[in-house]
Amino acid sequence: MSNDNPRRGLQLRSLIKPDGELELSLVSVDAPAPAPDEVVVRIEAAPINPSDMGLLFGAADMDTLRSTGSGTGAVTTARVPERAMRAMAGRLGQSLPVGNEGAGVVIDTGTSAAAQALLGKTVAVLGGAMYSQYRTIKDEQCLVLPPGATPAEGASCFVNPLTALGMVETMRREGHKALVHTAAASNLGQMLNRICIHDGIALVNIVRKPEQVALLRAAGAKHVCSSASPTFIEDLIQALVDTGATIAFDATGGGKLAGQILTGMEAALNRSAKEYSRYGSSTHKQVYLYGGLDTSPTEFTRNFGMAWGMGGWLLTPFLQRIGPHATQALKQRVADELKTTFASRYSAEISLAEALQPEAIARYGQRATGAKVLIHPNKDIAAA
Amino acid sequence: MSNDNPRRGLQLRSLIKPDGELELSLVSVDAPAPAPDEVVVRIEAAPINPSDMGLLFGAADMDTLRSTGSGTGAVTTARVPERAMRAMAGRLGQSLPVGNEGAGVVIDTGTSAAAQALLGKTVAVLGGAMYSQYRTIKDEQCLVLPPGATPAEGASCFVNPLTALGMVETMRREGHKALVHTAAASNLGQMLNRICIHDGIALVNIVRKPEQVALLRAAGAKHVCSSASPTFIEDLIQALVDTGATIAFDATGGGKLAGQILTGMEAALNRSAKEYSRYGSSTHKQVYLYGGLDTSPTEFTRNFGMAWGMGGWLLTPFLQRIGPHATQALKQRVADELKTTFASRYSAEISLAEALQPEAIARYGQRATGAKVLIHPNKDIAAA
Repeated sequence: MSNDNPRRGLQLRSLIKPDGELELSLVSVDAPAPAPDEVVVRIEAAPINPSDMGLLFGAADMDTLRSTGSGTGAVTTARVPERAMRAMAGRLGQSLPVGNEGAGVVIDTGTSAAAQALLGKTVAVLGGAMYSQYRTIKDEQCLVLPPGATPAEGASCFVNPLTALGMVETMRREGHKALVHTAAASNLGQMLNRICIHDGIALVNIVRKPEQVALLRAAGAKHVCSSASPTFIEDLIQALVDTGATIAFDATGGGKLAGQILTGMEAALNRSAKEYSRYGSSTHKQVYLYGGLDTSPTEFTRNFGMAWGMGGWLLTPFLQRIGPHATQALKQRVADELKTTFASRYSAEISLAEALQPEAIARYGQRATGAKVLIHPNKDIAAA
Repeated sequence: MSNDNPRRGLQLRSLIKPDGELELSLVSVDAPAPAPDEVVVRIEAAPINPSDMGLLFGAADMDTLRSTGSGTGAVTTARVPERAMRAMAGRLGQSLPVGNEGAGVVIDTGTSAAAQALLGKTVAVLGGAMYSQYRTIKDEQCLVLPPGATPAEGASCFVNPLTALGMVETMRREGHKALVHTAAASNLGQMLNRICIHDGIALVNIVRKPEQVALLRAAGAKHVCSSASPTFIEDLIQALVDTGATIAFDATGGGKLAGQILTGMEAALNRSAKEYSRYGSSTHKQVYLYGGLDTSPTEFTRNFGMAWGMGGWLLTPFLQRIGPHATQALKQRVADELKTTFASRYSAEISLAEALQPEAIARYGQRATGAKVLIHPNKDIAAA
């Protein structure tokens, strides 16, 4: 390809065709010339978050992954099962860029003073299409990293840190005093644990494996329950009694866990109940499903009274609800604590071409604790 | 029994013993002498609502019902399965009176002018323990029925009418413009249908049987979907497109229906979507579970984006939230439209003794449309 435009580069695309084939490929695109209030960022690090995988793979059956071609010309495909196609209807035939967040260096700017002030700076960006070599974005979407911070250190500035802070903020705004988190050994869960320890908030961590209990305890967590333990329900109730948590954020989404948490909260509340009410405790119990690590249906037995709620929780609408001023305060905290509270770890850094390879997908697609991967869109790119 | 106290009478009690036996019986109690702001009501009609049955029978297995003794001395028992005993923990060993609402005649009053003004009046009361011959209650809890209205006509003044009005009020307060109701051919559902027709609100009625479609259509309902139909999901989506309903009240609670409604709402919203969002429509979709006609677990597939909520809905906390002024306005509407919008029908009127008989329970306990029963606590009571 000819590269006479310094903003021309590769971008990862996900396409689901009307016949049910998912196709991942790299396309060459020109990042637009910056408007006065815009800058062009050379992206050097972008994490693959669980929230990115939904757009990347859709409802495709990962056992059907195949790849043809090689390097940046590779095309990887998979089948979307017929039963899942209804949920894909809105995106059929659209070649979609992927990558919610990333970080890189500002290589060109518009004419405004605010934009020009960013030239050469290392910035973090939330704005989609981050699995691209170059991105043109508004200057106000950039968060300037502290001196000395690398793009890799700032790549996950937004999704996980703001989600973790958003959970604590939601807890406060909805009148709860402690919270529950599932898949608590995740990168996000470890951040939330650090935030809660720092802010003196009681947190019940639910994990799936014994070794994750040790990991969180070593990080100072006081309440850790493993759903693999035969005493899980009793352990959970005791932690809920100890903390008084009546709101939970569940990353698994499917299966019985969300309902078990409501059941546990009700049991904990009833331990101190003075009088029987057939409608259960009058204290509102809430579980927000913010992820879907467990893709099976959600199922619960309604044995937790009538004062309960379950619902979706998503970062962007939450930030819209709290408004720009409160959002900015959260972002500033992330920048201030980037190398401590909000530090992320990655198991690998891969190129755009590597991100298409089935062997790489098999690793980063498993959504396992400790397997988070960083894409470096300008790695291994031969100058044209 | 001796009856030298004119306020002494029988009261139906439900007791679950720690060993798991449910026991229904009649006990003789003295209604307290009225305080200055209280009145004594001779209860002549009290409905058995689904919400009463939860307290009456708890989690007992209805196939194990047995009765010993006869008449007002009968004792009826049933077994609560071991797995359900945790949910009963709060009421074990307590002999609980039953009956949320009823109507009757004021036979004695306290010394206040407001109380004395009620003497001889036929009133409706919400206050628990209505399956009693006599109830002493605050004058302000009484709703004076319109001239000529009988206790039977006023017996269901509160639970169903206020619940139906509360659904419409919740819809308005939470910013929705149309609503969905399940088990829509119920007494409550027919009321809601009349309210919505009167107020010009679009209502999607979901029923379980073809004959219930005809019943609601004959009552003027425009959108009626039968979950027994092979085209149910498509019919539901079309009705949601036509009405724009984004809030539902589900009486069944268990099974897949609540989730299907959310799925249908999302599909309806996506028909007019301009752009794909992997997180689904940004319009909030809400289903409130206000009953549990289906006692199986609740199950749903999360294919309706992230802007959704599910939760319990209960009349009393709702009325507390809207406050006494708004509550009084709803009550006045019920009194004004008692013989039209809020008319109830009953399949039988039974005595307290009859309410204990397994054959009667087999009828009124089935919670079927058109099988609502009225208890007349002063029927067939021999003067002592």
